[in-house]
Amino acid sequence: MKQNRTRISDVMDEIQSRITSRTYLPGTRLPSVRAQARAMELSVSTVVEAYERLAAEGFISARRGSGFYVTGPVAPLALAEIGPKLDREVDPLWVSRQSLETDGTVLKPGCGWLPAAWMYESGMRRALRTLARSDTAELAEYATPLGHPALRKFLARRMATTGVEAAPDQIMLTDSGTQAIDLICRFLLEPGDTVLVDDPCYFNFHALLKAHRVRAVGVPYTPNGPDVAAFETALQNHSPRLYITNSGIHNPTGAVLSPVVAHRLLKLADHADLVIVEDDIFADFETNPAPRLAAFDGLSRVIQISSFSKTVSASLRCGYIAARPDWIEGLIDLKIATSFGGGRLAANIVLAALTNSGYRKHMEMVRLRLAGAMEKILPRLDEIGVKPWFVPRAGMFLWCRLPAGMDAASIARSCLKDKVVLAPGNAFSQSLSAGDFLRFNIAQSTDDKIFNVLERALSEQA
Amino acid sequence: MKQNRTRISDVMDEIQSRITSRTYLPGTRLPSVRAQARAMELSVSTVVEAYERLAAEGFISARRGSGFYVTGPVAPLALAEIGPKLDREVDPLWVSRQSLETDGTVLKPGCGWLPAAWMYESGMRRALRTLARSDTAELAEYATPLGHPALRKFLARRMATTGVEAAPDQIMLTDSGTQAIDLICRFLLEPGDTVLVDDPCYFNFHALLKAHRVRAVGVPYTPNGPDVAAFETALQNHSPRLYITNSGIHNPTGAVLSPVVAHRLLKLADHADLVIVEDDIFADFETNPAPRLAAFDGLSRVIQISSFSKTVSASLRCGYIAARPDWIEGLIDLKIATSFGGGRLAANIVLAALTNSGYRKHMEMVRLRLAGAMEKILPRLDEIGVKPWFVPRAGMFLWCRLPAGMDAASIARSCLKDKVVLAPGNAFSQSLSAGDFLRFNIAQSTDDKIFNVLERALSEQA
Repeated sequence: MKQNRTRISDVMDEIQSRITSRTYLPGTRLPSVRAQARAMELSVSTVVEAYERLAAEGFISARRGSGFYVTGPVAPLALAEIGPKLDREVDPLWVSRQSLETDGTVLKPGCGWLPAAWMYESGMRRALRTLARSDTAELAEYATPLGHPALRKFLARRMATTGVEAAPDQIMLTDSGTQAIDLICRFLLEPGDTVLVDDPCYFNFHALLKAHRVRAVGVPYTPNGPDVAAFETALQNHSPRLYITNSGIHNPTGAVLSPVVAHRLLKLADHADLVIVEDDIFADFETNPAPRLAAFDGLSRVIQISSFSKTVSASLRCGYIAARPDWIEGLIDLKIATSFGGGRLAANIVLAALTNSGYRKHMEMVRLRLAGAMEKILPRLDEIGVKPWFVPRAGMFLWCRLPAGMDAASIARSCLKDKVVLAPGNAFSQSLSAGDFLRFNIAQSTDDKIFNVLERALSEQA
Repeated sequence: MKQNRTRISDVMDEIQSRITSRTYLPGTRLPSVRAQARAMELSVSTVVEAYERLAAEGFISARRGSGFYVTGPVAPLALAEIGPKLDREVDPLWVSRQSLETDGTVLKPGCGWLPAAWMYESGMRRALRTLARSDTAELAEYATPLGHPALRKFLARRMATTGVEAAPDQIMLTDSGTQAIDLICRFLLEPGDTVLVDDPCYFNFHALLKAHRVRAVGVPYTPNGPDVAAFETALQNHSPRLYITNSGIHNPTGAVLSPVVAHRLLKLADHADLVIVEDDIFADFETNPAPRLAAFDGLSRVIQISSFSKTVSASLRCGYIAARPDWIEGLIDLKIATSFGGGRLAANIVLAALTNSGYRKHMEMVRLRLAGAMEKILPRLDEIGVKPWFVPRAGMFLWCRLPAGMDAASIARSCLKDKVVLAPGNAFSQSLSAGDFLRFNIAQSTDDKIFNVLERALSEQA
């Protein structure tokens, strides 16, 4: 005999097919529950539940005392909602849009995150089960303005491991690392201000700064951090208000800041009264932590931000800002005005996942897998004449130069037709001086098709 | 015999108490796992798990091949992190900050949401358990730029029940209703532009518009919607770019738009090329839906936004924008630039909760409870001379005038000392003409203490 669940689905399918075939037009009153039960030889309660579910999903609606009616027509979903956008300009948002918009049939060596199967899935499942049993307040209420107190205490301890001293009330949770930087820009910048970025840097910094109507000036990045002489010249010539950079592993180059460069940068920043935002998002990928500007500076003019999208899950949104207490106070007001609260549920899940003893082992495994992928991918790239600018000690990125005369943007457009999303260099470069570079995500570059497609595109352009 | 879980906690407690008492100073190497196991007469595996958990929580850290060490000191949590902020000016953010910052010992008749116990707790728990078993991609990956396709299809059907025709790809998910309006402001406004709001209106509209450096102009609200003549004059005098309002139940008055006012507003908006943002957040509280501007206009110059914080949960962040396709395209770029993705997990939970057949029954119960609370509170307010401006047919708000000569801001400051957060009228009024009004949330006004504290404050000021 059929399960009750199946019988309910049968009724739902029957009604839906009549709606789709327009046997039941919008506005039609459905047969009464009793009549339907008789007609389908089912119990009244089964039909009631099926009607209730159809109403919950919006296909029919209940009118008090008069039964259920088919709801109005719904405009159709555009046919090509998901899929590569072949006609889009290669701008700073190109890589994000292509990577986010395409489905599972597309390979994404250009994207900025790990494959889903590399993420902390078991920790997420466990955290969700734990949350399902938590207090009502955790499930239903807004967060406090700073956000989940226990997560902030945990983050303070975590920052201490890289020498950053932050009290928990110097930490404000946000809905993402990007929102963290966005709030800081809103707080500190006026339209027309100048902001220094690394050249190359994470492409979304360009998109974000454009949204703020501020001018971005790039400082060349070296294997030890930004070029200190160029940094000093940029300070003199442009009087920037802010410098946005990565701490730890740099995106896209995989290089890290040396202590001497860190010290010199901070001296220059002091002299020029420059505020520095340090994005710590790749911290858990490091094998040995690089120096943190926030540790040297004591969160005086350095603001540290981060999120958990690269290690725990990109499906939940949670990030944070650690900064001077007076700045945090102003940032809280801005956060409430522009996004009301932060996600209490997301903060709870992040805390449960990170404090699980399996997380450290998970990240060890991720680092090992990345090291293994790196060993395989370097010779494959070499075979097709693609040379790494720098071989990183950790992280997922490899910043590579194409053979002479090649244009990464047209290579990327060409490979997109073959369902391979690449990350062309100029999306990362304020000065557009990386036109022959590509950023590879080694965790997303394990499929041989990528190198075959790339090789063909290179030979076509040669 | 003790459970293994308890034994692990014993080891953790022991080590933590030694760290707290500074028996183990920062940098101290912990006893080896073996030595600790012998000393506490426990198995090695129990101690290993305890050390791993302490490391996961950041109290100790592992160094490869050399054991576990106590991590550095952490700056203390400020003593008064949570509690009423007595010295803050009564500005548009006053009510939000006081309501969000205070703990369970504070009564909040001024806050804008239901008590946790009235929310859809069972649906949340069920949704979390369902999510714990979902595909890896749902748990770990970014959302598509528009956000969860199935939730958008559901929302399209749901909007159709109030006559709003939106294709699923005209709907973009956001992290909150507030973020939805914020993105629209970023997309459509220039600093210095003028925006019309209702007077009174939801106070956070004022805070949000201030963050955008635009000028807000209030149009008096009547029991049938905005005053049409005043609206027309405001269009002529200020050439506003945008009008932000509630659809359905108005915050704070509880009034609803009449069809004739809706029609006139849209004619005026057409003539003046005005864009209208309609915040539909209280839709599920209505017993009979009021006219939607978006339904009359067909999402041409009207944008509808909403979220689920008032009905499903405020702990998860999810909202949406429904608008013209070309605007949605621009809004996607802005969303990615300023917050990267949307919360895929949150969208999944919202969809699971809303499509559960229990949701409709839950909201019926909420509406009944609100009607019951209204019946009790009206006479209590009458006893102390507080008069409703309008008695709403549905929703949680009651907009009330204090006895002649009373100042709501000083009454609110006085009641805050007695741990009662009120919502003084001028937080809602652009023209500051509601100095003798208070907004009551009837769901949060069931405790008699509120009326006693308020009565005393009123008699002290009289």
